[in-house]
Amino acid sequence: VKRVLVTGASGFVGRQTLAPLAALGFEVHAAGRSPAPAAGVAWHEVDLLDPFAAERLCWDVAPSHLLHVAWFAEPGRYWTSPENPRWVEASVRLLRAFVAAGGRRAVGVGTCAEYDWSAPSPFDERTTPLRPASLYAACKHAVHVVQEAYAASSGVSQAWARLFHLYGPHEHPGRLVPGVAIALRRGGEAACTEGRHRRDFLHVADAGEALARLLDSGVAGAVNVASGEAVAVRAVVEEVARHSGGSGVVRFGARALPAGEPDEIAARVDRLRDEVGWRPRRTLAEGIADVVAWWREHEAEARA
Amino acid sequence: VKRVLVTGASGFVGRQTLAPLAALGFEVHAAGRSPAPAAGVAWHEVDLLDPFAAERLCWDVAPSHLLHVAWFAEPGRYWTSPENPRWVEASVRLLRAFVAAGGRRAVGVGTCAEYDWSAPSPFDERTTPLRPASLYAACKHAVHVVQEAYAASSGVSQAWARLFHLYGPHEHPGRLVPGVAIALRRGGEAACTEGRHRRDFLHVADAGEALARLLDSGVAGAVNVASGEAVAVRAVVEEVARHSGGSGVVRFGARALPAGEPDEIAARVDRLRDEVGWRPRRTLAEGIADVVAWWREHEAEARA
Repeated sequence: VKRVLVTGASGFVGRQTLAPLAALGFEVHAAGRSPAPAAGVAWHEVDLLDPFAAERLCWDVAPSHLLHVAWFAEPGRYWTSPENPRWVEASVRLLRAFVAAGGRRAVGVGTCAEYDWSAPSPFDERTTPLRPASLYAACKHAVHVVQEAYAASSGVSQAWARLFHLYGPHEHPGRLVPGVAIALRRGGEAACTEGRHRRDFLHVADAGEALARLLDSGVAGAVNVASGEAVAVRAVVEEVARHSGGSGVVRFGARALPAGEPDEIAARVDRLRDEVGWRPRRTLAEGIADVVAWWREHEAEARA
Repeated sequence: VKRVLVTGASGFVGRQTLAPLAALGFEVHAAGRSPAPAAGVAWHEVDLLDPFAAERLCWDVAPSHLLHVAWFAEPGRYWTSPENPRWVEASVRLLRAFVAAGGRRAVGVGTCAEYDWSAPSPFDERTTPLRPASLYAACKHAVHVVQEAYAASSGVSQAWARLFHLYGPHEHPGRLVPGVAIALRRGGEAACTEGRHRRDFLHVADAGEALARLLDSGVAGAVNVASGEAVAVRAVVEEVARHSGGSGVVRFGARALPAGEPDEIAARVDRLRDEVGWRPRRTLAEGIADVVAWWREHEAEARA
C-alpha cells in the first residue's frame, strides 16, 4: 500500500496535493494545524513545532511516503522570520521520525531562492550554483542538505521540489495576483512596478499535481517545479486586469522594484518534463482566468 | 563581562578550550553530559539532545559568547550515524536559545570534510568548493548554513571553525597516534597503511587555543583551524615510533588506504594566522613527544 503523509495540508500549496495524490492511488493522511477542512481525507490536527508531534504522527500513520510542505509562510515576514530555523528543527525531526517508522520515499519543498540569483536564468538544478541570500532560503537549503545525506545513509529515496512563483486560490490577498484582482474589482488603483522583470508563474493546482507526480516517481534530488516559461510581470498584471472587470486602474511604475530583484527568474524544467513526465495542465491565460473567477466568489476572504 | 558557554566541554576538543578561554578573560560556563570533571569551572551537566535543555541552560547562564563543540563523535561510527541529524536539531535549537537569551557572538565547529576532497589541497575557506560526502559532514555543513543566515538576521556575530586532523591527550585509543603508540609500547605490531598520503596535523591543545582566540576575535565566517602544513602520515607514525620505545614494530602497507582518501588534505591558514593572529605553539615533533608521554602515563585508559 502507498500511504502518504502530507504536512502543511491546509496551506496554499499543501491542500492542492491531496486530490492528485488520491488519484494516483495513495492512501492520503493529511496533517495541518487547523481542524479537518473537509471529509474524505484522513486528517491529523497537529503542530509539527511540538517536539514530540512528528514521532507520534509517524508512529500512528506509518507512512510509506512523505510529502513535507509545512513551513512558516506568512507573506512579508517569511524571508527573515526567526520561525525559519524552528522549521529546520521540525523538518529534520520529521524526517527522522519518518525513517524510524519505516518510510521509503520523501519529497521536501524548497524554493527558487536557493539559487544564486546573479546566475543566468533559467536556473538548472544541476549547473546553477546555490547561494541562498535570505534566512528563509538558507534554512530550506539546510534541510535539503540534511535530507539528501540522511536519506542516502538510511536507504530512503528522496527528492527536493524547488517551487518558483505560484498563484491560485487561497493565496494571501496581499500578493500580486489577488492584490491586483481585488483592487480592480473594487474600483480602486492597483499600484504596480513597471513589471518589466520576468518570472516563472505556475498555477498552484498544477504545482500540487506536480508534487504528487514527483512523489510517485523515483526521481532523486532537486527538481524545479515550474512552468519553464519566463513571463513579464506586466503581462501577468494585464491578464488579471482583462479578466477582473470593475472600474479600477493599474498604475505601472507606481512602485519601485525592490533591490536585489533580478531581471529574470525562471526554471529549466527538463527534469520535471522528461524524468517525472509532467507538464502543466493550464496555460497562463487559463490559470489567470481561473483564479480571477475564484477571487470573484471569495472576495469575503480578502476582507478577513 | 564576557561570559562564554562551551558545549561538549568534557570531550576531546572541548576540554582543551576551557583554560585558554579563562586566560582570555572569559567567565567560563562549561556544559557536558558527564558530571563536573574538576573544580575551577562553572559546570553544567546537561544533555543537549533533550528538547528543553538548551533553553533552560541559556536562560540560566545568559552567555554573551557561545562555543558549540558538542556533537556525536564516536570513532568509526560518526561518519554515518543517525545521531548526526539529531545534532543538527540540537545545534539549531541551541543557537535559537542563545540568541533569545541575548547572546552576541557564536562560534560553531565544522570539519575539513565539508570541502570537496577532489579539489586541490590546501583547502581555502573562500575558494575551495564545499561538497560534504558523508552524513556527518553534510549535517555539519547544514548547521553552518543556518548559523550564518540566522546570525546575520539576528545581528549576532558568528564564525565557523573547520577542524582538520587533530591528535592529543584523551584521543580515542583506536585512532592513529594512540593506536601506534600503544601497540608499540606493548611490544606488538602496528599495522599501518603505506602512509604516503599527506594530512594536516594539529595538537588538540593548540586547536583549543585557536578556538578560544577565534571566539574572542570578531572574525566572521568559515576559518580553517589547522597547522597549514601537509605531512606524510608515514612521517607521523615514524615520529610516534621514535618516542614510544618498546619492542614493537610498525608494518607499513599492512592496511589498505580506504577508498576515497585523497593524497593530500591540508588547510590554507591565512585567515587564522593573519585575521585571528594565531599560530600553533607546538611543532609536530613537540606535539608527538607530548602525546606519547601522555599515553605512557595513561595506558590504563586505553585498556578501558
